Amino acid sequence: MKIRKIAGGFTAAKGFKAASCEAAIKYQNRRDMALLFTDVPCAVAGTFTSNRVKAAPVLWDMGIVKSGRPARAVVVNTGIANAGTGAEGMRLCSETAKHTAEILGISADEVLVGSTGVIGPNVPLDRITAGVTVMAKNLSDSAEAGTLASKAIMTTDTVNKEYAVEFDLPAASGEGTVTVRLGGMSKGSGMIHPNMCTMLGYLATDCAIDPSLLQKALSNVIKDTFNMITVDGDTSTNDTLLLFSSSLAGNKPITTEDESYELFCSALYSVCHDLSVLMASDGEGATHLLEIRVFNADTKENARTLARSVAGSSLVKAMIYGKDANCGRVLCALGYAGPAFDPANIVITMTGKSGSVCFYKDGCVQLFDEEKALAILSEHDVHFDCDMNMGNEEATAWGCDLTYDYVKINGDYRT
Amino acid sequence: MKIRKIAGGFTAAKGFKAASCEAAIKYQNRRDMALLFTDVPCAVAGTFTSNRVKAAPVLWDMGIVKSGRPARAVVVNTGIANAGTGAEGMRLCSETAKHTAEILGISADEVLVGSTGVIGPNVPLDRITAGVTVMAKNLSDSAEAGTLASKAIMTTDTVNKEYAVEFDLPAASGEGTVTVRLGGMSKGSGMIHPNMCTMLGYLATDCAIDPSLLQKALSNVIKDTFNMITVDGDTSTNDTLLLFSSSLAGNKPITTEDESYELFCSALYSVCHDLSVLMASDGEGATHLLEIRVFNADTKENARTLARSVAGSSLVKAMIYGKDANCGRVLCALGYAGPAFDPANIVITMTGKSGSVCFYKDGCVQLFDEEKALAILSEHDVHFDCDMNMGNEEATAWGCDLTYDYVKINGDYRT
Repeated sequence: MKIRKIAGGFTAAKGFKAASCEAAIKYQNRRDMALLFTDVPCAVAGTFTSNRVKAAPVLWDMGIVKSGRPARAVVVNTGIANAGTGAEGMRLCSETAKHTAEILGISADEVLVGSTGVIGPNVPLDRITAGVTVMAKNLSDSAEAGTLASKAIMTTDTVNKEYAVEFDLPAASGEGTVTVRLGGMSKGSGMIHPNMCTMLGYLATDCAIDPSLLQKALSNVIKDTFNMITVDGDTSTNDTLLLFSSSLAGNKPITTEDESYELFCSALYSVCHDLSVLMASDGEGATHLLEIRVFNADTKENARTLARSVAGSSLVKAMIYGKDANCGRVLCALGYAGPAFDPANIVITMTGKSGSVCFYKDGCVQLFDEEKALAILSEHDVHFDCDMNMGNEEATAWGCDLTYDYVKINGDYRT
Repeated sequence: MKIRKIAGGFTAAKGFKAASCEAAIKYQNRRDMALLFTDVPCAVAGTFTSNRVKAAPVLWDMGIVKSGRPARAVVVNTGIANAGTGAEGMRLCSETAKHTAEILGISADEVLVGSTGVIGPNVPLDRITAGVTVMAKNLSDSAEAGTLASKAIMTTDTVNKEYAVEFDLPAASGEGTVTVRLGGMSKGSGMIHPNMCTMLGYLATDCAIDPSLLQKALSNVIKDTFNMITVDGDTSTNDTLLLFSSSLAGNKPITTEDESYELFCSALYSVCHDLSVLMASDGEGATHLLEIRVFNADTKENARTLARSVAGSSLVKAMIYGKDANCGRVLCALGYAGPAFDPANIVITMTGKSGSVCFYKDGCVQLFDEEKALAILSEHDVHFDCDMNMGNEEATAWGCDLTYDYVKINGDYRT
């Protein structure tokens, strides 16, 4: 295996530290702030929400990423989102960065910020700065520090999400190879819908790579990973995904789209893919992971659109929860997705470890083995394969079922 | 009042009869078929689902409407939808029309068909034809017959939906005016999302009007009525809305877009509006009607898109159910709708009989009176006014809350 999964998350690569603390922003008796810090100035790539209403931290971080200047730190809080906060929200970002910069002995424009939780009431600046002061003393490159940080940024997530890989690249010395690492963490789990990245995510690598290629790799990989998950169709105001590169691995710097770049992209895909699936699987109230694979489509974009339509269908999601093989709903969701296709030519199959059932072909819903369908729907992961019979493009989308708990969680989120 | 609400539905206008029966297609011990019949050949306008997968009855009816030929009857069944049924589904339509034509002494190409329920297993033709034979004997122009028909086409609807109005137009004789009537019925209540008409609906008028204007009026009016409601974002394969005109009112035929046409359009809007709101209010599992008004938008289409986005947001819907004034979600749903706007310029207000609370202006989520917000959210109808401050266009969308019962109904729909 060229790309090997390893333990850890944000701190897996060389040069990255994390800390977290209980700042009592809104949640009590749990970690609700994280501080990420880099030993050296890092190139940083980022992708952000496409929502017209961008939270202040999104605007702040976009400014730093766009400037092309290196960055050193990220301050994240959960509980209350600094969003819909106008000029005061920008001042909060600025004050947070200023305080963090002073404590860490860096520049304020090297400090990114992230914020997630209930939109609205201003985040208390004094608790944020107090939290940063505490965390600055506890920064560590241990795997545990990374894990605790990944827990500290959770909102309604039920599990923390980390993933890391390593792979080998030619050494900068010209002799042999060095091991390069890439790891990260992310959080969901409501207001999740693919249109950019739909979450907070922080990735770190020690790979030496040209900053423009770092951004290019990230922008490409999210199209088939974070942008292909949906929990509820709501694209958040706060979505932010950042990728830092410390260049400390000692590899020959990647400066063109060569084999090393391809390998880096594969590693990045691997991390983003696994974090995405973890997020879909941990969607609010979810009891099932839903994987929709559309293949033999005419274009890549159509394949993505079709797959996302099925993954996002409330009726499909409710039927998965109810273990009810009412599979005409998958056909229906392909139909309203937008892309043209001939209903007479497509084949839809539901698969799981228990086997597979074809429930639509030759223009007709098929009779199928209800017992086998129930067995598949009783598994945690439910897959639908949609063969469009039009071309060679494919895409996969991930979602989750729609449950009582989703309604419960979101009917009473603020309390 | 130029347009006056009257009792009745499909049979309110002159020349229209209805019947219904228990055909045991799937449901037992309830009416599950309706037959609509016109005393004279009628002009018929129609709008149909935009889903790429169109149910056989949709294709059948589209053919008749497109031909421009008059029609005489509609046969509707509920319980099992003739959709995803390929050539066999078309044969079912053809056989149903043939049998109905024979019984009623009309031509098969004057018979439209409608079908709603679980997508898939073929509707039993023998029960359909037996039902038609029974219903043909019981056709009546009474209000009760119309009401029973409106009940017979229900699926998960909890109430039947009828509405009728009358208005006065210049008489054909050239002296004075005559009273013209327009009534109809529709059914929801899941797989409802605006992209055409999202339901079955049958409207009837005795107004004499040029068939092309009849179609034009219908196509225009649905843009601000049936196409502005959403229950779950799923656009059905079966959506059909038909409007029949018997020309029996004795009015001077409407042949140009004059005052009489405008009045007809207003009456049609009135009927379609009320049926739409009834459908949104009776969305699967709904406990609240949600009305989103977007005004001062730059274009009409943007106003519609913004309003629909909020009405369709799972998070907004869940918060209404939970009576939780987590109003940043309304802002968020405007933001991801697509149309550009400046978040600093918009004002969002929630209103009800209990008063109103402004929760967003000047780029900031506002502090508001939580008790008043709770009082508004405790009402059945909850309104959001979104002032975009960009122009003069407005649109209103209707939806409902997302509840445990929606999940329950759709997690186990087939049984």
